[in-house]
Amino acid sequence: MTSTTDLLTRRTQALGAGAPLFYEQPLHIVRGEGVYLYDAEDRRYVDMYNNVPCVGHANPRVVEAMARQQATLNVHSRYLHESVVTFCERLAALHGAQIESVIISCSGTEANEIALRMARFATGNRGLICTDATYHGNSELVGALTRLGQQASPNPSVRAFPFPEKYRPIASGLSENDLCEAYLEKLAAAIADLQASGEGVAAMIVCSILANEGLPDIPAGFMDRAASMVHEAGGLVISDEVQAGYARTGQWWGYDVTGFTPDIVVTGKPMGNGLPLAATAASRALVETFRAKTRYFNTSGSSPLQAAVGLAVLDEIEQRDLAGNVATVGAALKASLTQRKGASNTIGDVRGHGLFIGVEMVEPENNVPDTDLAKRIINRLKDKGFLTSNAGAFANVVKIRPPLSFSQADASAFLIAWDETIAELAV
Amino acid sequence: MTSTTDLLTRRTQALGAGAPLFYEQPLHIVRGEGVYLYDAEDRRYVDMYNNVPCVGHANPRVVEAMARQQATLNVHSRYLHESVVTFCERLAALHGAQIESVIISCSGTEANEIALRMARFATGNRGLICTDATYHGNSELVGALTRLGQQASPNPSVRAFPFPEKYRPIASGLSENDLCEAYLEKLAAAIADLQASGEGVAAMIVCSILANEGLPDIPAGFMDRAASMVHEAGGLVISDEVQAGYARTGQWWGYDVTGFTPDIVVTGKPMGNGLPLAATAASRALVETFRAKTRYFNTSGSSPLQAAVGLAVLDEIEQRDLAGNVATVGAALKASLTQRKGASNTIGDVRGHGLFIGVEMVEPENNVPDTDLAKRIINRLKDKGFLTSNAGAFANVVKIRPPLSFSQADASAFLIAWDETIAELAV
Repeated sequence: MTSTTDLLTRRTQALGAGAPLFYEQPLHIVRGEGVYLYDAEDRRYVDMYNNVPCVGHANPRVVEAMARQQATLNVHSRYLHESVVTFCERLAALHGAQIESVIISCSGTEANEIALRMARFATGNRGLICTDATYHGNSELVGALTRLGQQASPNPSVRAFPFPEKYRPIASGLSENDLCEAYLEKLAAAIADLQASGEGVAAMIVCSILANEGLPDIPAGFMDRAASMVHEAGGLVISDEVQAGYARTGQWWGYDVTGFTPDIVVTGKPMGNGLPLAATAASRALVETFRAKTRYFNTSGSSPLQAAVGLAVLDEIEQRDLAGNVATVGAALKASLTQRKGASNTIGDVRGHGLFIGVEMVEPENNVPDTDLAKRIINRLKDKGFLTSNAGAFANVVKIRPPLSFSQADASAFLIAWDETIAELAV
Repeated sequence: MTSTTDLLTRRTQALGAGAPLFYEQPLHIVRGEGVYLYDAEDRRYVDMYNNVPCVGHANPRVVEAMARQQATLNVHSRYLHESVVTFCERLAALHGAQIESVIISCSGTEANEIALRMARFATGNRGLICTDATYHGNSELVGALTRLGQQASPNPSVRAFPFPEKYRPIASGLSENDLCEAYLEKLAAAIADLQASGEGVAAMIVCSILANEGLPDIPAGFMDRAASMVHEAGGLVISDEVQAGYARTGQWWGYDVTGFTPDIVVTGKPMGNGLPLAATAASRALVETFRAKTRYFNTSGSSPLQAAVGLAVLDEIEQRDLAGNVATVGAALKASLTQRKGASNTIGDVRGHGLFIGVEMVEPENNVPDTDLAKRIINRLKDKGFLTSNAGAFANVVKIRPPLSFSQADASAFLIAWDETIAELAV
């Protein structure tokens, strides 16, 4: 076994400095099982971060489906293959009647590229609207939406509006209804600016639970009214369900939680439990317009391997009722953390849905973001065997997002470690 | 088993009309082994098209590596993992000293996006140069280079030059040396135009063997001199090895065959034998500049699964000396097809490298492209149990590109079917 120091040195050469790593002392993980990860010294960690292995690390049904299909056939989609069709049918059926057809690709970035270009072809407009603390992927087009952690490249087609929230809102003292109106006015200004510039509105793209924004509580009614405004302006609504979807919230889709009906749905990370797999789903008319304009083909997309693994993941979620587990365990964990908010004045807010919970760390007695504290907490929790990370517009939100099979017992163990951490850091 | 007609109907609904399919009567392929594919009636086809399963369909070493890794650990790259580092080291070592570090992604499109943006960051210029019959991927940025089979969207940063060739050159009657100069003048004009426009030259991107252009014989010295001109203009040279690399030509890289030294190398399709896996490799300085500017992270990229499968593919190619097989079998097959050129005046040209051969079909007695004949040939060959496709600027080149393990016996069987096809179509 290579030492961690040697491995770091080799990694810096082979991948280049700047390839991101978690934690002050990076972890050298060698195996996983269910919600547990093990390092090179066989130390066990409870995985409370990884949404990709949604049905658990080394899930036997997924391993078996993957191995069986790769040993049978794995080839591109220009031959007919039944399970590819079945997988797309099952994906579409998980949405409302407006979603009929699916384009499979290999990453959320690819799937969001398709969604944005689909909206542009369908509307004839170029303008794209996103929030001011978002991330949807890393191609040139999708990366132009990134407002989080770096300066966005100037892009004449993109307008960002302040993400709606109730904890640290754009104006304090407003009623929830007036706050909603205030955010909608910001969105209206973005729409008006795109129209005045001649770009017009092709689409608004949002993560349906504003995950990268820090999982804010959204003023009631905002999402649905925002969608209506975009439609009235001639644009389409894209729900990025890469983080929010696949039972993460206890419901199948984040848009069910925050209450709107998207025209285009993008899914990714958990779909393949680690196999690169993503999808863009929409009406048949939208999909066919995109296909006609681009003759889109993705060499590794819509493969029998993706279909076999994708179907195994859907089966696991449905047959084990993981959405039910998420709803139950998530609600209890969120309630327990909310109780602790009163005990520490550095916990500004506890938010989230299902097994996606954010704990916002702030300076005592005010709500100034304390990013350093959030980082100290996640590093201390790691030392105690619990893996989390930080997120949000100020990177001060402790992000809890375990595999969907995370149990009450795991949650209880975590709460003990959380209490110790808060006590040790004397906050 | 669903009937082919029912499956087509379901597919049109679930994937949308326009999802591409091969052949007048689409094939319903259900399993593969080595260089053979089998349809739903268990009819066997010799696969002479698929480069992705480079070490053979259902390759046991790949299946075993994939299953073992997925059962052990498959997680993102922000934890240390040794085989990810080892894989990047082995990839870099397959090139000259100028290639030091690697960024792993999930598709050729993603890898070309990285390459183009890397060149822009490093040079401070925006301009991109490609050939006039190319395809490098399907994102908005990479798709702006597409000149094949569709109108390119106007993009102020892109200039295309006529791809260099000797069969149907831009001017006839020139010596090879003068022809090379004539093509270089076209490239010089593209460079000058980008510079005059203020875009400058960020990169020239080429498939090193001009695969989508139809595998033309390139005037001697063109590629190296073109690379020098791009460097003199302040740009970088990107070799797209997605089709040309990984021993396809009998050498590891297409740029070894056509004689130039790239600054950035992009690989994809065959890397994962069907697992989505791609890479962008360059000097450490280029990679680190890109990482610093973008903080690039790819959720499913640089995963332990990709590394395990990628290493298994490299092992197969090296330990079975598939490059040697490609060189031997490919040279013999090309020679046999070249002999047949004299026997049919519809075969205008036989070209290619290793196990990537193009047979250009033309009207008798002249070199007018006969796309319809090429399509009739590939459909007839399919009926005889041999899978090919068509390619080239006029889609009139029969494209032969089997897995690297394709044997002399397979080639002999193919030549019998080829002769029958030519006789039956009475050409």
